[in-house]
Amino acid sequence: MKKTSLKDIAQKAGVSTALVSYVLNGKEKETRVGEVIAKKVREIAKELNYQPNHLAKSLRSGKTHTIGLIIADISNPFFANIARVVEDEAKRNGYTVIIGSCDENADKSWDLLNVLINRQVDGFIIVSCEGSENQIQYLKERNLPFVLLDRHFPDIQTDFVATNNYKASYDAGIHLIKSGYERIGLIAYKSEMYHMVERIRGYKYALSDNNIEFESNWLKEVMFENMEQDVKTAIDELLASEHKVEALIFATYGLAINGLKYINELRLKVPSDLAIVSFGQAEVFDLYYCPITYLRQPLELLGKTSVEYLLKKLKNPDEGMKQILMEAKLIARDSSMAKSVWLAE
Amino acid sequence: MKKTSLKDIAQKAGVSTALVSYVLNGKEKETRVGEVIAKKVREIAKELNYQPNHLAKSLRSGKTHTIGLIIADISNPFFANIARVVEDEAKRNGYTVIIGSCDENADKSWDLLNVLINRQVDGFIIVSCEGSENQIQYLKERNLPFVLLDRHFPDIQTDFVATNNYKASYDAGIHLIKSGYERIGLIAYKSEMYHMVERIRGYKYALSDNNIEFESNWLKEVMFENMEQDVKTAIDELLASEHKVEALIFATYGLAINGLKYINELRLKVPSDLAIVSFGQAEVFDLYYCPITYLRQPLELLGKTSVEYLLKKLKNPDEGMKQILMEAKLIARDSSMAKSVWLAE
Repeated sequence: MKKTSLKDIAQKAGVSTALVSYVLNGKEKETRVGEVIAKKVREIAKELNYQPNHLAKSLRSGKTHTIGLIIADISNPFFANIARVVEDEAKRNGYTVIIGSCDENADKSWDLLNVLINRQVDGFIIVSCEGSENQIQYLKERNLPFVLLDRHFPDIQTDFVATNNYKASYDAGIHLIKSGYERIGLIAYKSEMYHMVERIRGYKYALSDNNIEFESNWLKEVMFENMEQDVKTAIDELLASEHKVEALIFATYGLAINGLKYINELRLKVPSDLAIVSFGQAEVFDLYYCPITYLRQPLELLGKTSVEYLLKKLKNPDEGMKQILMEAKLIARDSSMAKSVWLAE
Repeated sequence: MKKTSLKDIAQKAGVSTALVSYVLNGKEKETRVGEVIAKKVREIAKELNYQPNHLAKSLRSGKTHTIGLIIADISNPFFANIARVVEDEAKRNGYTVIIGSCDENADKSWDLLNVLINRQVDGFIIVSCEGSENQIQYLKERNLPFVLLDRHFPDIQTDFVATNNYKASYDAGIHLIKSGYERIGLIAYKSEMYHMVERIRGYKYALSDNNIEFESNWLKEVMFENMEQDVKTAIDELLASEHKVEALIFATYGLAINGLKYINELRLKVPSDLAIVSFGQAEVFDLYYCPITYLRQPLELLGKTSVEYLLKKLKNPDEGMKQILMEAKLIARDSSMAKSVWLAE
């Protein structure tokens, strides 16, 4: 079946192609097409299942009502869920979202960005990956509208919607200290990304504000690409040293999953062998035998606000720059139970 | 910063715009442009960071080296992980993937399909949602290349790559029966989708092949939109009846998550209060206090094969139709432990 053209409709209606075009583009009044003819044309278009060529239309109008969402890692449930929020919010505003996942790889991110620019999305929402600063600069220089989500670069002035990671990590440390733990480890990624740097900084400040001297072998920075093995090694080291930790913070969901698997393998008991607090959020934390204390990021609000900021920018390119850091909330559960409680059991 | 145009390059090189276009489209030989001039043009284009307009180019060539992936639900880790596999495999073949998630909603799926058609993707890989048969017909009628992934419609002849759901569900039933359970329930979605129908059929045949009479109140079909509450009600009913079940199969990951949360709430012990087998796969199944027996679908192979079939089709539109049903593998763990074992404990 051939795609219906304006000509097909014109022939069937017995009018000119130009007239059909006027009607289907809502210009019948300006061009004085009679109401009866206009109605007939619309009916025939419907009957022949005419699909306007949005691409050609977009090239003229410069608006596609499409948002490109680039996320760092689709298989991380935090990002998968935030993608769902962005889609819902965009849909409510008449926009469709196309997603690209760059797998924490700056080259892939470049490819995606170019594909989506060439597909004429109106703007971007981006969860940046490491080494993609030049891409953000590129968008800025070309005045392509975008909002950074969840991760941002402190040295580049952009709109962003993110979590206060310093505060979240600080809260995690304070919570563990108040629960009676002193020797507290942190497993993070080896990364220059600001959100990771901030998570490490918050942890260190929680210790020093409570006169606990940070020991450098409590902090383990592992490679994303070699996470499974690196997390095992990190936990072995954290538990083997003479200053072995009694509590552990995981800086991401992926680290926590790999860590918990290994903790099970070692048959360690949470929290009495090792108390745990994690970033990220996922069903695993609820269903683990000892529910995991975690930092609940305002996922819904982060996603919705990023769409809101972008749409404002699309409507008014001169809209001022918007930056917001939202607070995570520590959800305390059994994995970081007060030491006094399980000591008494 | 304005985007560099052919005109900008032409001015700087002191040649005509047409000549620049010849060179950048690799036609300098046919059009007898001298090598020195051609080199100069290419250097200036590089210096000015010229980005060819792929969109206009694609409209001419009809090839964008982009695949549209439409998945039923991005927040389901099975689909998020399969998206990752499709991306990797496409990337290896020089294709970029843009993803749309339709949230099990046929209207959203239509929107996405149109957006992606208008964005000129070369072809589609689609995890269909209920009620989207007309969309598949539409693609067929227009000869737009596509492959269905994970779900297909038995009444529409298409390429597809899916799991043998009848067999998988049959295996789950047989496994539980062999482990000593007789009263076995199934929680599924109320759906006309073939994969769901097949999962129900396999379960029933496993019972009847073992002379267990299927009782209609062992099968609960819940609404996707009201999953959380419906699963609770279903479990209450399955456990309250005088013929209460001793084992339960969850037909999807989402059903299992909701079910396990409620089972925890009720403080039921798996497997002695209720043995469990589930479809889907996720870290939760590994980390649950009693590791969950599940049907491992060949996720990697499903994703890779769908890309392979689509690319073959893109290269040769006359390539014959390809349909494959792959086998899931039952991974037996403690949640469906033989009754004799825990009775003896």
